[in-house]
Amino acid sequence: MNPYQFTATEGLHKVQSGDLTVEDWASSCQTRISNRDGVVKAWAYINPEFIKQARYLDEVPHSQRGLLHGLPVTVKDIINVKGMPTQYGCRDFESDFSESDSSLVRLFRERGALILGKATTTQYGASSIGPDTCNPHDPTRTPGGSSSGSAAAVADGQAALGIGTQTGGSTIRPASFTGNYAVTFTVDTIPTEGQWPFAKSFDRPGFFARDLHIFMAILDVFKPDDVGQNSFTGIEGARFAVCKPMGWEQQAGEGTRAAIGDAAKLLRKHGATVEEFDLPTDFHDLPQLYDRTLRREAWETFVSIYYADKKALDKSILELLGDPRRLTDQERDEDTSRLEALRSLVDKILGPFTAIIAPSAVDEAPIGLENTGSYWFNKIWNALGVPMVNVPGFNGKNGMPIGVTLIAPRNQDRYLLDVAKEGGKIFASEGGWKNLVIERE
Amino acid sequence: MNPYQFTATEGLHKVQSGDLTVEDWASSCQTRISNRDGVVKAWAYINPEFIKQARYLDEVPHSQRGLLHGLPVTVKDIINVKGMPTQYGCRDFESDFSESDSSLVRLFRERGALILGKATTTQYGASSIGPDTCNPHDPTRTPGGSSSGSAAAVADGQAALGIGTQTGGSTIRPASFTGNYAVTFTVDTIPTEGQWPFAKSFDRPGFFARDLHIFMAILDVFKPDDVGQNSFTGIEGARFAVCKPMGWEQQAGEGTRAAIGDAAKLLRKHGATVEEFDLPTDFHDLPQLYDRTLRREAWETFVSIYYADKKALDKSILELLGDPRRLTDQERDEDTSRLEALRSLVDKILGPFTAIIAPSAVDEAPIGLENTGSYWFNKIWNALGVPMVNVPGFNGKNGMPIGVTLIAPRNQDRYLLDVAKEGGKIFASEGGWKNLVIERE
Repeated sequence: MNPYQFTATEGLHKVQSGDLTVEDWASSCQTRISNRDGVVKAWAYINPEFIKQARYLDEVPHSQRGLLHGLPVTVKDIINVKGMPTQYGCRDFESDFSESDSSLVRLFRERGALILGKATTTQYGASSIGPDTCNPHDPTRTPGGSSSGSAAAVADGQAALGIGTQTGGSTIRPASFTGNYAVTFTVDTIPTEGQWPFAKSFDRPGFFARDLHIFMAILDVFKPDDVGQNSFTGIEGARFAVCKPMGWEQQAGEGTRAAIGDAAKLLRKHGATVEEFDLPTDFHDLPQLYDRTLRREAWETFVSIYYADKKALDKSILELLGDPRRLTDQERDEDTSRLEALRSLVDKILGPFTAIIAPSAVDEAPIGLENTGSYWFNKIWNALGVPMVNVPGFNGKNGMPIGVTLIAPRNQDRYLLDVAKEGGKIFASEGGWKNLVIERE
Repeated sequence: MNPYQFTATEGLHKVQSGDLTVEDWASSCQTRISNRDGVVKAWAYINPEFIKQARYLDEVPHSQRGLLHGLPVTVKDIINVKGMPTQYGCRDFESDFSESDSSLVRLFRERGALILGKATTTQYGASSIGPDTCNPHDPTRTPGGSSSGSAAAVADGQAALGIGTQTGGSTIRPASFTGNYAVTFTVDTIPTEGQWPFAKSFDRPGFFARDLHIFMAILDVFKPDDVGQNSFTGIEGARFAVCKPMGWEQQAGEGTRAAIGDAAKLLRKHGATVEEFDLPTDFHDLPQLYDRTLRREAWETFVSIYYADKKALDKSILELLGDPRRLTDQERDEDTSRLEALRSLVDKILGPFTAIIAPSAVDEAPIGLENTGSYWFNKIWNALGVPMVNVPGFNGKNGMPIGVTLIAPRNQDRYLLDVAKEGGKIFASEGGWKNLVIERE
């Protein structure tokens, strides 16, 4: 195996034990990037100093190393990294370099992460129009978006960890399309400072990797004092529920139907119960509530660009913004309080279940790079602020990866990762999908 | 008169009519800065190109000029301005220059504003420990904080407009201490992208000027399509209410008591009714609700600095953060929904009044630069998200300025400015305070 093939956790362990230098890990990623960038095009910017920085990390005594020491990371290009440009999926900022790390990147670096560069994104992480990044498993297909490059680079072995963001389905959907594990922690867990906003009630960072354990390390970095989580005792006897959300009948494709069915079957085979579950009628206008809130908050985000240089925004963002007329005060207050009430309610409703199983995308990644796919199935969960994990393991009819989303109440992030690890083992070994672009080389 | 003595609106009119060049206005500010910076120390960074940029603005044909064409502005140093360093009231970032304007600054520049430089701030706009900026009216006294430099530079005639921020009382209090007009518009009106966060539910930009009309121009820039406001028909027959909030008996100093009393007397003299008004008991734990929410949200803001380099944070921020233990999920949900409910409720309660009159600070600016004063009287209103205007006009026993706050329901920003303009005229001519540092030279 080449080091680029290691999962994030494998690589970190080898660096820790002295079996791998950070430089060798980084060099292997560099070679992989050289070999594959012409096809995959996952990078908005490659840090020209990353090998030098890797050597520097190798010189740090083991006693002074952080939890992420040596981890090769790509950062979505709407998040600031000191000394690298932030181009937001536009062309205007190529020569501008950030003066400081975003809060997220700052603590990553402090804990030893190696930032390889910036990953492509749709415009401002808000557009549905893809960059020219392709899906490593089939270059004619989208990797999804808006965190397109983070998903593609990790699936292709060009980085061990990808930092993305999610406001609707910008992490979970591309993870499903590219066969990555991915997580978006409970809203307000990971700082968003230094990240271009979209809609402040919904924005959160997301993470892509080829293993799940690394996400626990990220929680250890940002919430070391976390307490009071449920404890998970194994798949046997666990109580899952499949939630086919609003629009399932019209929107769910063949691949997604099969993946959800197979996930349930496999969990049952391993001793869990899996029931059907519907969100109560209180939640039935959540998609509309989400859309109105998104649009209202996106206005605050884009007002300056809209009035300063409207033509700088692509048509997908302009459509989203629509007419500048705001909601009435009463509509806004009703929406705000309903959203809070639903967030509170969903925690209670999900409580009795080990985890909810939900679709991560409408089907496998569609053909074409322009359309990054639908986030319909993600947005209601993202609106509710609950932690979401994409677990790959299944295939569509064209052999493209399909994942399922596991969901738990807010602040049960560690617990949910424990559940996803056990479920993920089963899906990986029996679900039928393998990441061949990495494994076969 | 020298051009630096013009109010923002006077200067803009003169530039518009051709009676003043942008260069002459800017040069006059430059001279004023040279003469006074050794004492006032309001600048974290002075843009070395501002005269050149002023000349460039003079070349723009009148037909292509924006609403803020030529306006000399200082920007609080937690807000990014392209080509200038953002130092956050720390010493670590002196050589780092922002790659892009914050959304707020972007539209200001697009509309022709001239950014003179960056104004001093307490650390990250979150600390209560002042920079070495002094109050122009008495250099032994604080100008307040955290928007210390923006308030001081404007009061001293070094800039016509100051951009600050407010999370508790960081705009209204320093405006009262320095004798400026100031406004914080309804929460979520002006974009906060590119501004260092503190607590996302409460953060908003604030503006300082020596006249009130300029704030209407800012609304015209950011909300040109604004509709549906109440209309104000004059002080005569208006119905004001004085609200002495929780803690008034213990905290309100002699100067503030006199200012509130005089404001009421003057409004009555001009034909308004002024009654006493208490927030209902629902609001009585709002200070505690604010404190818990501030602390919870500040944790997300400061988590990376806290775990990466705790000693980089000053003692006031460390005290605020306290122990990293979070609230329980239930406490958080209760706080969030109560805050939303109170915001909705206060709009209804304030509806019958022309405006609420509230204290802007506990008294005139205290002696000493280390302590920027108490924001006790501001935070409850800021928590409620309502628009707030500081109207100067009164004195403390040492002759320092004291303002009063006018408040209206959310999204009644234009209406509130109309009320404040009429009230402001009365307070300015009969309240007793004059800005002598500008007028006597």
